[in-house]
Amino acid sequence: MNASDSSAPLDLAQTRQRIDAIDREIQQLIAERARWAQQVGKAKGELKAAVDYYRPEREAQVLRMVIDRNAGGPLSNEEMVRLFREIMSACLAQQEPLKIGFLGPEGTFSQQAVLKHFGHSIKGLPLATIDEVFQEVAAGNADFGVVPIENSSEGTVNSSLDLFVTSPLKICGEIELRVHQHLLARSGRLEDIERVYSHPQSLGQCKAWLRANLPKAERIPVSSNAEAARRARNADDAAAIAGETAAHIYGLKVVSRSIEDRPDNTTRFFVIGRELFPASGHDKTSLLMSVKDKPGALYELLTPFAEQGLSMTKIESRPARTGKWEYVFFVEVEGHVEDPRMSGAIAAAAARAAELKVLGSYPVALL
Amino acid sequence: MNASDSSAPLDLAQTRQRIDAIDREIQQLIAERARWAQQVGKAKGELKAAVDYYRPEREAQVLRMVIDRNAGGPLSNEEMVRLFREIMSACLAQQEPLKIGFLGPEGTFSQQAVLKHFGHSIKGLPLATIDEVFQEVAAGNADFGVVPIENSSEGTVNSSLDLFVTSPLKICGEIELRVHQHLLARSGRLEDIERVYSHPQSLGQCKAWLRANLPKAERIPVSSNAEAARRARNADDAAAIAGETAAHIYGLKVVSRSIEDRPDNTTRFFVIGRELFPASGHDKTSLLMSVKDKPGALYELLTPFAEQGLSMTKIESRPARTGKWEYVFFVEVEGHVEDPRMSGAIAAAAARAAELKVLGSYPVALL
Repeated sequence: MNASDSSAPLDLAQTRQRIDAIDREIQQLIAERARWAQQVGKAKGELKAAVDYYRPEREAQVLRMVIDRNAGGPLSNEEMVRLFREIMSACLAQQEPLKIGFLGPEGTFSQQAVLKHFGHSIKGLPLATIDEVFQEVAAGNADFGVVPIENSSEGTVNSSLDLFVTSPLKICGEIELRVHQHLLARSGRLEDIERVYSHPQSLGQCKAWLRANLPKAERIPVSSNAEAARRARNADDAAAIAGETAAHIYGLKVVSRSIEDRPDNTTRFFVIGRELFPASGHDKTSLLMSVKDKPGALYELLTPFAEQGLSMTKIESRPARTGKWEYVFFVEVEGHVEDPRMSGAIAAAAARAAELKVLGSYPVALL
Repeated sequence: MNASDSSAPLDLAQTRQRIDAIDREIQQLIAERARWAQQVGKAKGELKAAVDYYRPEREAQVLRMVIDRNAGGPLSNEEMVRLFREIMSACLAQQEPLKIGFLGPEGTFSQQAVLKHFGHSIKGLPLATIDEVFQEVAAGNADFGVVPIENSSEGTVNSSLDLFVTSPLKICGEIELRVHQHLLARSGRLEDIERVYSHPQSLGQCKAWLRANLPKAERIPVSSNAEAARRARNADDAAAIAGETAAHIYGLKVVSRSIEDRPDNTTRFFVIGRELFPASGHDKTSLLMSVKDKPGALYELLTPFAEQGLSMTKIESRPARTGKWEYVFFVEVEGHVEDPRMSGAIAAAAARAAELKVLGSYPVALL
């Protein structure tokens, strides 16, 4: 029986009995699911840690099915996906849980991205720099790392991208997270503010708002939003742009809330790991390519992908750090390296490039 | 079919098909549960916000059933309870989600307690002081508040208890949370440390460790562990006792991990709200009583509870703040005010007390 087709309304006690019966079934099924998840581990040999079981392509497939089935509601896709992430997270953590490195401290957008993607049955390792996230994953102290890669209004986080040039790590997932920026100040009064501190990314995300509301204030870029809040604490004429957390840590008042110019302001993160995973059926491939002579040579490198009908979702050029890499291009193409069209295009591009590196093939972010 | 009684082992693809089928059932049931939860709302009239549906006694009953049924595993009680808290949290948040005030910033033990108890489908309001948590709940800006009340090694958080003397708010839940304390310092070397900053509660929780490992160091109590970390940042001979979060926010190294004297170091929190809720079947009642003349009169006040066979789980005396309250006692008794034995004992005690106030009856903490 279904709540919506009950002819006569049940009283509270009867409704609760129905819910109890449903809970009993849900619980049996979760326990059964956990037992089958153990079986998957055994099918792969006698493994010990969650990292040996974790398959991002499989998780993406499971969650896509969840969304497909969720058409009738009543819960939103976000809520239903969140519940299934937690169920998978708990099933996976029956052995030693996944260790995930991220740019700390706790309470950052990076931590939110970790929990959104991996659920709560994990061990989070907050680290001081993006560089350290790469190092800890490479050294095996973290199973995976989560690093910010670009913002929908402000573009690429270049420091993350540059690390891929020399790192042996692979991209095995992407995460998209909505972010809100606030104007914070000690006084709490807009009219007192003559200087605004923030990370350059955040200043950029709020450019139009600043122009409209604080046209005369000086904009001072600093290393992080937390550092901005710390500085704003010391003067009555200073403000910071940062998240809610920073306001509370540094005892600042929220002068204006959600001042990001675009209401869909989203930050994208990469999940980095030590190996490539199989295709999930809806994937992207990130490539790093260099040409020795001139930027114009890029077109030649891209032709093989166009010929195979593979669409490019992003291209970004970076100055090379060594003489060897004169231009470095980060390219994202829809598809997986397992796809023969993709592997063919990569081979053709590799023949023309000074260097070509597959950074990873990974499921497209879900929600 | 069950994973454990499969005679021939299935291959990976077959196992995944089984899991897909289970997920389909789980999802249908969660959606059905969400629809029934809406029905509960309708049965109570046309209500709008989650606070109108939230019934702590019912949640406690549901989770006790979850634990009873979980005997066979394979997931731990903690994990299974966590999943059901999230399912209930999502079902409840179909309308406007619960707003929960707590002692901020984000990343504090108080926030952990909020999420443990209410799940993630809530809106958390980090506040600057315990006093503000009381105010925001009283004013209706928060539906419930979560305040620390005592620690297993260090005893009562008196500032919280004192607020109940004058507050009209009711206790409608308790939460128990394991907490770990770390020794943090800029240098990271134990031999450099001559001063240790921390909240008095935390210093107390690590007394034996400090005596054994830093017998000569000065112990300096400060207002919060975050403040301790902030101070330790400025000198090479200073350390702080605080949680993981503070280490990352203030860029300190963990000199020694989990230095709390008792491995079961637990902090207890109260959930405060504006009304009393019905009995869950396994409840506690918190009372505040005063006697006008002498402390000895307390015995008389307690007699009615003993006579009714109601056992006392805690008693705490506090200096009165007004002349009117010469002694104030906080007493916790097993049972609910709805129980006639409890109401009888309360009436008898009230007749003898200068003043008696029922602070709340609430489900005993689960895990």
